[in-house]
Amino acid sequence: MNDWTAHFKELDQLPAALRKSLLHGSRKLDFPAGTRLFGAGQPADHLLLLLSGRIRVTQVSDSGREVVLYRIGAGESCVLTSACMLAYDDLATEGMAETDIEAIGIPRATFDEMMGLSPEFRGFVMRAWSRRVTDLLSLIDDIAFQRIDLRLAQRLLAMAEGDRVNVTHQQLATELGSAREVISRALAEFQRRGWIEQARGELRLTNRDALEKLTQSAEQ
Amino acid sequence: MNDWTAHFKELDQLPAALRKSLLHGSRKLDFPAGTRLFGAGQPADHLLLLLSGRIRVTQVSDSGREVVLYRIGAGESCVLTSACMLAYDDLATEGMAETDIEAIGIPRATFDEMMGLSPEFRGFVMRAWSRRVTDLLSLIDDIAFQRIDLRLAQRLLAMAEGDRVNVTHQQLATELGSAREVISRALAEFQRRGWIEQARGELRLTNRDALEKLTQSAEQ
Repeated sequence: MNDWTAHFKELDQLPAALRKSLLHGSRKLDFPAGTRLFGAGQPADHLLLLLSGRIRVTQVSDSGREVVLYRIGAGESCVLTSACMLAYDDLATEGMAETDIEAIGIPRATFDEMMGLSPEFRGFVMRAWSRRVTDLLSLIDDIAFQRIDLRLAQRLLAMAEGDRVNVTHQQLATELGSAREVISRALAEFQRRGWIEQARGELRLTNRDALEKLTQSAEQ
Repeated sequence: MNDWTAHFKELDQLPAALRKSLLHGSRKLDFPAGTRLFGAGQPADHLLLLLSGRIRVTQVSDSGREVVLYRIGAGESCVLTSACMLAYDDLATEGMAETDIEAIGIPRATFDEMMGLSPEFRGFVMRAWSRRVTDLLSLIDDIAFQRIDLRLAQRLLAMAEGDRVNVTHQQLATELGSAREVISRALAEFQRRGWIEQARGELRLTNRDALEKLTQSAEQ
């Protein structure tokens, strides 16, 4: 296997001997888009480090409601969920390959060994973990204070291909940690203001400037 | 210092030599109720393990809004926030002593040493961390799906001394990750139904059974 450690900030600092153990003790994994990588009944048995692609991590409650927690991209790791699972805790999170995935899988034995031997590896794990916790804290702040119209405008702008957004109200609700009715109400308000049009299950942005202005008001 | 490791599940499994290093490398800390233990401009320089008392951990946003994330009690540790901070990340969280606190402080050098030497210590840290992440995930689920009336009823029952609850609408909002207006509206509805009375800044529960029934509907 090539030396993939260069793709991961901090792991590129590993001393040569430890780098060699890490390369030996892990393996390349490929998954097609749409693969469920971990979730209830399918615990993570590797710590995944992403070389390319994108993973969506959602929380799924007992009643089947979903919230998107964050996405993991190239150069990042599934450290929060994987490490929780390696610690034998059953998290109600699910990881889905949004695109084709190239990843490195570090099995439990190698993970444990590296945690013991390398301060650099521990630093990598703890910093990656902190960043995910920071993501969770921002999500809590966002949903607690219900700036749903601002967040909806941001999401529509991010998802638009040209002026079209191909998404259901339920999908938007899952992305934003909200209820479908709340999203439908906000979209109806956007439509009333002439910012979007909704027809035949498709959404069209008819006033991008107004939507962008709204998202900027969030940053003040 | 006495051997306090017996108070912490998993640390009581440490081999004798490591236990000795941990005891030597940490110290007893006492704080009176009301002490701000960590927060913006005051990074955690110790991992705190609680022997007695209770710490409230809140998230404070740039605009000054607060959400209570969780509480830490005897036998638990501030591992999530402390470890993030030991990893040099600046979290917007704040820890406040809600009662007098007796704690063990593990300084960074001892923490790093124990993480390297002891699989038991790593297990302790990672499992404590997972539990806190699980707390954050439940909080996200709770606030995303806005079961605010149920959560408010639970909180009122938990805080009541006899039938009285001495709390402001803003304090309830912070506890529940909601806005003051949302809480005031829900309390007005409880009052309309005859479940509580509000007078002169005090809240009185007038129908506990109804409140308890409401909270039970949350568990289905």
